[in-house]
Amino acid sequence: MKEKTFVSIIMGSKSDYDVVCEALKVLEKFGIEHEIIVSSAHRSPERTIKYVKAAEEKGAEVFICAAGMAAHLAGVVASQTIKPVLGIPIGGGALNGVDALYSTVQMPGGMPVGTLAIGKAGAKNAAYLAAQILALKDDRLNAILKEDKIKMAKKVEEDSAEIEKLLK
Amino acid sequence: MKEKTFVSIIMGSKSDYDVVCEALKVLEKFGIEHEIIVSSAHRSPERTIKYVKAAEEKGAEVFICAAGMAAHLAGVVASQTIKPVLGIPIGGGALNGVDALYSTVQMPGGMPVGTLAIGKAGAKNAAYLAAQILALKDDRLNAILKEDKIKMAKKVEEDSAEIEKLLK
Amino acid sequence: MKEKTFVSIIMGSKSDYDVVCEALKVLEKFGIEHEIIVSSAHRSPERTIKYVKAAEEKGAEVFICAAGMAAHLAGVVASQTIKPVLGIPIGGGALNGVDALYSTVQMPGGMPVGTLAIGKAGAKNAAYLAAQILALKDDRLNAILKEDKIKMAKKVEEDSAEIEKLLK
Amino acid sequence: MKEKTFVSIIMGSKSDYDVVCEALKVLEKFGIEHEIIVSSAHRSPERTIKYVKAAEEKGAEVFICAAGMAAHLAGVVASQTIKPVLGIPIGGGALNGVDALYSTVQMPGGMPVGTLAIGKAGAKNAAYLAAQILALKDDRLNAILKEDKIKMAKKVEEDSAEIEKLLK
Amino acid sequence: MKEKTFVSIIMGSKSDYDVVCEALKVLEKFGIEHEIIVSSAHRSPERTIKYVKAAEEKGAEVFICAAGMAAHLAGVVASQTIKPVLGIPIGGGALNGVDALYSTVQMPGGMPVGTLAIGKAGAKNAAYLAAQILALKDDRLNAILKEDKIKMAKKVEEDSAEIEKLLK
Amino acid sequence: MKEKTFVSIIMGSKSDYDVVCEALKVLEKFGIEHEIIVSSAHRSPERTIKYVKAAEEKGAEVFICAAGMAAHLAGVVASQTIKPVLGIPIGGGALNGVDALYSTVQMPGGMPVGTLAIGKAGAKNAAYLAAQILALKDDRLNAILKEDKIKMAKKVEEDSAEIEKLLK
Amino acid sequence: MKEKTFVSIIMGSKSDYDVVCEALKVLEKFGIEHEIIVSSAHRSPERTIKYVKAAEEKGAEVFICAAGMAAHLAGVVASQTIKPVLGIPIGGGALNGVDALYSTVQMPGGMPVGTLAIGKAGAKNAAYLAAQILALKDDRLNAILKEDKIKMAKKVEEDSAEIEKLLK
Amino acid sequence: MKEKTFVSIIMGSKSDYDVVCEALKVLEKFGIEHEIIVSSAHRSPERTIKYVKAAEEKGAEVFICAAGMAAHLAGVVASQTIKPVLGIPIGGGALNGVDALYSTVQMPGGMPVGTLAIGKAGAKNAAYLAAQILALKDDRLNAILKEDKIKMAKKVEEDSAEIEKLLK
Repeated sequence: MKEKTFVSIIMGSKSDYDVVCEALKVLEKFGIEHEIIVSSAHRSPERTIKYVKAAEEKGAEVFICAAGMAAHLAGVVASQTIKPVLGIPIGGGALNGVDALYSTVQMPGGMPVGTLAIGKAGAKNAAYLAAQILALKDDRLNAILKEDKIKMAKKVEEDSAEIEKLLK
Repeated sequence: MKEKTFVSIIMGSKSDYDVVCEALKVLEKFGIEHEIIVSSAHRSPERTIKYVKAAEEKGAEVFICAAGMAAHLAGVVASQTIKPVLGIPIGGGALNGVDALYSTVQMPGGMPVGTLAIGKAGAKNAAYLAAQILALKDDRLNAILKEDKIKMAKKVEEDSAEIEKLLK
Repeated sequence: MKEKTFVSIIMGSKSDYDVVCEALKVLEKFGIEHEIIVSSAHRSPERTIKYVKAAEEKGAEVFICAAGMAAHLAGVVASQTIKPVLGIPIGGGALNGVDALYSTVQMPGGMPVGTLAIGKAGAKNAAYLAAQILALKDDRLNAILKEDKIKMAKKVEEDSAEIEKLLK
Repeated sequence: MKEKTFVSIIMGSKSDYDVVCEALKVLEKFGIEHEIIVSSAHRSPERTIKYVKAAEEKGAEVFICAAGMAAHLAGVVASQTIKPVLGIPIGGGALNGVDALYSTVQMPGGMPVGTLAIGKAGAKNAAYLAAQILALKDDRLNAILKEDKIKMAKKVEEDSAEIEKLLK
Repeated sequence: MKEKTFVSIIMGSKSDYDVVCEALKVLEKFGIEHEIIVSSAHRSPERTIKYVKAAEEKGAEVFICAAGMAAHLAGVVASQTIKPVLGIPIGGGALNGVDALYSTVQMPGGMPVGTLAIGKAGAKNAAYLAAQILALKDDRLNAILKEDKIKMAKKVEEDSAEIEKLLK
Repeated sequence: MKEKTFVSIIMGSKSDYDVVCEALKVLEKFGIEHEIIVSSAHRSPERTIKYVKAAEEKGAEVFICAAGMAAHLAGVVASQTIKPVLGIPIGGGALNGVDALYSTVQMPGGMPVGTLAIGKAGAKNAAYLAAQILALKDDRLNAILKEDKIKMAKKVEEDSAEIEKLLK
Repeated sequence: MKEKTFVSIIMGSKSDYDVVCEALKVLEKFGIEHEIIVSSAHRSPERTIKYVKAAEEKGAEVFICAAGMAAHLAGVVASQTIKPVLGIPIGGGALNGVDALYSTVQMPGGMPVGTLAIGKAGAKNAAYLAAQILALKDDRLNAILKEDKIKMAKKVEEDSAEIEKLLK
Repeated sequence: MKEKTFVSIIMGSKSDYDVVCEALKVLEKFGIEHEIIVSSAHRSPERTIKYVKAAEEKGAEVFICAAGMAAHLAGVVASQTIKPVLGIPIGGGALNGVDALYSTVQMPGGMPVGTLAIGKAGAKNAAYLAAQILALKDDRLNAILKEDKIKMAKKVEEDSAEIEKLLK
């Protein structure tokens, strides 16, 4: 029996934490249970596979995977679970994250990774998409997301007021 | 009250149908309710917005959007709903779908589009990801996906047997 | 009845202001009426649509839209008006503005966005192109643009003199 | 005195005609006066310059320039006129039109070329944008463009009906 | 105890066979023992891992992995063995193999995949590199490779003679 | 003592002949002495080096090198001579010649390769540039090039007449 | 009658001077006469054309053109002269000089621009290639280039000695 | 007779040392004999060729070549030896190492260069791959690599513990 449901965040390297924080902030803001580990598709493949199976067992409903370069992490996780897997391509190297984007999004048929933007915007959106997925069976979350959308639009108006003032 | 829950597929142009079929086949194979319309982010923006709201009202739980070139369709849909939106970048033009990929995946924070591969593999995977999302609250679908994963692995073995025979 | 004619500048995010300033400087130099707002294609779609319609009603003759990443703003504006829409792709992210360029320029047939260079040069040129468009029915502006073109050529000569001196 | 106002289309090579036709069709549909010539930025620079000046004299109000590879044509025209210059990057070579796109859109400050999509969609849109520009002082054209926009939306509905039928 | 030493070729999909044949021809020409299987990083991860371990046990000394799109196969194999892993990026999809190239070559530190060219040239070279590796402890192979290099140079001379004749 | 001066064309592979023909046609049209060989930077390095030295001895004044993929040929020739080396990147493979372009043009300081366009246009232009270089000390060639430039401009006028007729 | 022969350097903008300096240093080191001006293909087209004709008249034997973004300068110069034109793509903007590279190298048949690497290495090499061209009729320069090539090789040996020492 | 076997590292320029250090550290950690020189494919071609032959004679079993821009070094070495050649593309210039990657990996059939990632990760992996190759006939090294792989997995666990603590 599952103890609780939660979002599992896996990052391929400790150095991805700075980007992944954007996802954490969103999950915390929305009050969504989550756990986070570092596990590499390549350096710790057994750990990754074992973790995914254990996490699914424990109640993981969405996996968020962040990795850079030849970013195989999300794909490896997707090969081990039928839960939705979301991918955050990490930039910053020689190819600015285009390598991670292609390695994450160009998955073969039958093995989807829902891929978000490179870097921090993508991390934020991975958490948002996870929230939207969980909200399908969580009325509280559904209401929060609706309200959040209204707040975002309001924030744009405030930003605009600030800019418009500059021209007067 | 919602009549039924379903996956909504929106394609930006009639000519995307050939690619979108790969998503339809998967949804049909898995017995997932769906509807499909053509609606353009640019040529019929009111229709798109109206449809998204009506579809959500009627029970749409996941939106799959397919578009090419400056592929804004998934983004426009994401701006109108808090349901998960999945994007299929359509290739085939001068830029081979890189334009559609960037236009779909590089969404700003707070407006996620779970993006899949360019073209047919992406269409197939959009349906798979939709199924995985719906399976979170649908035991029948959950069981089907598990079985399907086993079948995929078996198919690989059969393919291998065929190839291995060639070398003997 | 229209109170006045003007150029409307819409930027997708407050953070685009630094780039957009290059357009403002040109409009001010040429004495062209303008207004500026922040409105996002995704975070405030209703506001964007409502604004475009209202602005057109009030006398907006050209729209200049600045946005980064999956830059849908110009496309969304183009879908709501038959006034010329000019697009400034904003760079700076992981993909250096190539994402914004493709999302802005690769519009489908019937929905043009006249796209300028990525970043500040593009912002400056959006204002220049707006001025050229308005000059078609504004003799004062026409004369200013002709004079400005002569000044630009003169500036090159002065710059050259400075460089040539270095080698003597 | 100007005899008439018109849109001038310049193509860098006879072989661009196939793409440019998409612009011609739109101008003819909207009843917009136009003329077309072949003139190369490189092989016939004097002719190009002379033509631009003469065309402006005769009443050219918008220039549409189509060229491939190192597509300098629109830039050369822009250097000779203060009328709006629109650029169509022609694809088809080794770089699929990315070379032509960059050569057309990345103009330096003060020398705008309103750039449209690579190839046929861009040709169509160059004519649309020219029509939108001319409509600023042409009520007939204004009305036509409004009606055309409605027709485009209707066409989407018809296309959708066709596709929706396939699934029933 | 190892029965024999051999090169193991793993292809991600049956459809890669056409490209992989170029490697087979070279291995056969050089009389190098080899075996080939189809196994997917994503669709049959357990099979892949199990095979790599068993193959290593049986005497596999070099692994050649061919895969397209988000080509994780070589990386997954590399995570399971300390034998040299060589990667052939398969082209042909929307991104022409650039996705497969980046997914194969951009491996993180400690997990090398010796990557060859996209497509058939890469397949041929993977076999050549495997032969060079094995030749380090195989005098017969060493001699064959030296002779082969001389033949390649001779073939160039013959080709040249053919071309030079055309101009006389 | 040099017997004659001539342009030397080296192609990396027999299969480049189709592209290189465009250079041959120009050299023949202008009556420029030339010779052509196949020699690979990689498969026949000694032959390439020996040839370059012998050709220089015999009177080669410009080297034109055509190669595809990791196109090292022009660079290898440049490392062996102080005569001008011109490079034609050959397209057609998975990367459409971008690989050959970068491998040819991005030479380190002190080792120039004057690089032309990818494929046939580049082959034609390599011969033109060679002709321009030789014309610096050949009045006959100088006159021919001037006349040829006039003919090119005339050809544009004829092409234009043909197109203009279509619209009448 | 020509007063002297020289290399003409044209830069599109004063800000390119930093890169162009690398060419100046080489020309000065080799004692090659040169002059330098700023002239833009777009902002001062008449000046550019007039200068090219006058420079050719005065004895310019090679033109070196440096420009960034939609780098048309070399192409415009090539359209006005039959002297060899060498192009330096300037980097530094949003597209890192890929725009300038494509705009410079992808010239249509009959209008060659011998293109060098992006930025400083390219500037250095443009001067080297100019020197190689002039050396075809200048024995002094020929000897200097031969000696310089030997020095470069020696410099490598010295650099190596420095590095090798680090490991001892 | 060979004195010893070793890995030979060749770098195209002194400035590549910073990146190459990552390879040196690995070779030292594993106790693998190695030597390092600077030798350029272009500036010191004879030295490069002579060195490769001498190194092979002396016992070089693997060549590791590091070069940037039009990175021909690995290809030139591959043309002179039948020992395995591994390539490290050096980034940092205008094209961020994509030029070096393509120039290194896209080798023609029969001339393999086992290519690693751009920059430091690639340098580290070149040494790892060299170690894996040598381990095929070196039991000590084989054991070290196995142990190292286990350590890498442990390091991931420690990193994870550190991150997990942050969330508690």
